[in-house]
Amino acid sequence: CPCPLPHGECSLSRLLRHLLSARRSLDVCLFAFSSSQLGRAVRLLHRRGVRVRVLTDVQYMGLQGSQIGLLRHAGIQVRHDQESGYMHHKFAIVDRRLLITGSLNWTTQAIQSNRENVLVIEDAEYVKAFLDEFERIWEEYNPINYTFF
Amino acid sequence: CPCPLPHGECSLSRLLRHLLSARRSLDVCLFAFSSSQLGRAVRLLHRRGVRVRVLTDVQYMGLQGSQIGLLRHAGIQVRHDQESGYMHHKFAIVDRRLLITGSLNWTTQAIQSNRENVLVIEDAEYVKAFLDEFERIWEEYNPINYTFF
Repeated sequence: CPCPLPHGECSLSRLLRHLLSARRSLDVCLFAFSSSQLGRAVRLLHRRGVRVRVLTDVQYMGLQGSQIGLLRHAGIQVRHDQESGYMHHKFAIVDRRLLITGSLNWTTQAIQSNRENVLVIEDAEYVKAFLDEFERIWEEYNPINYTFF
Repeated sequence: CPCPLPHGECSLSRLLRHLLSARRSLDVCLFAFSSSQLGRAVRLLHRRGVRVRVLTDVQYMGLQGSQIGLLRHAGIQVRHDQESGYMHHKFAIVDRRLLITGSLNWTTQAIQSNRENVLVIEDAEYVKAFLDEFERIWEEYNPINYTFF
């Protein structure tokens, strides 16, 4: 499924369909997450018992409209960076077998108005490279490592 | 070559190496292009006779530090959007056979400080999807279509 995502609602449907296929785990690593539709989908998966983990950028998550607070409120594990640079990834991994990656942040502006691409990849080698990156960042952003002064 | 790009200079070297392998054409489609090292590489390819085309975002290209003015000054063809949404892609295609895509804008901040990924893909199906997207946008952003009022 290598097609760049044409903008508009049908791309959102495609993304939702892939996300909602998750049965066991969803690992999300996103610079910006403010789409309420995608936020609802992620919370629904959590309620279904899918193990959801979210990595995000500390600067963006505090902005108005961010979904991160709602995800945390729902009991979903979220970790963020403590760096001056951006955690700029935009990928998700479904059931440790399906990689969704590209230029798209999960924002309404990006979905509806921007020119973006999304790759949906099942190739095990690609999935593993991104899973390894996810696990590496997940450990690095463990709150145990946060410094406060 | 599916590895997410670790940040730092060695990722820049890898990107430069792939770009400088171009013999016939380089098609660049970038939201943000301000890295002077990558700008120099693109101008070098142009001087070597490689056919370089650049698509970019109208909002970002006017910012201080953008390389777009230098590319145009060197005689490289650049086209930009006229939309309120962002032209948010971050990909390049070398010799119509090698696709470089991911989360990375070509900025010093992104290369040195951000957490980013870059995929380097030679699979013909993926390359074609992104080439088709490039040609579609290239025609759409033809200056003939610009409106001024």
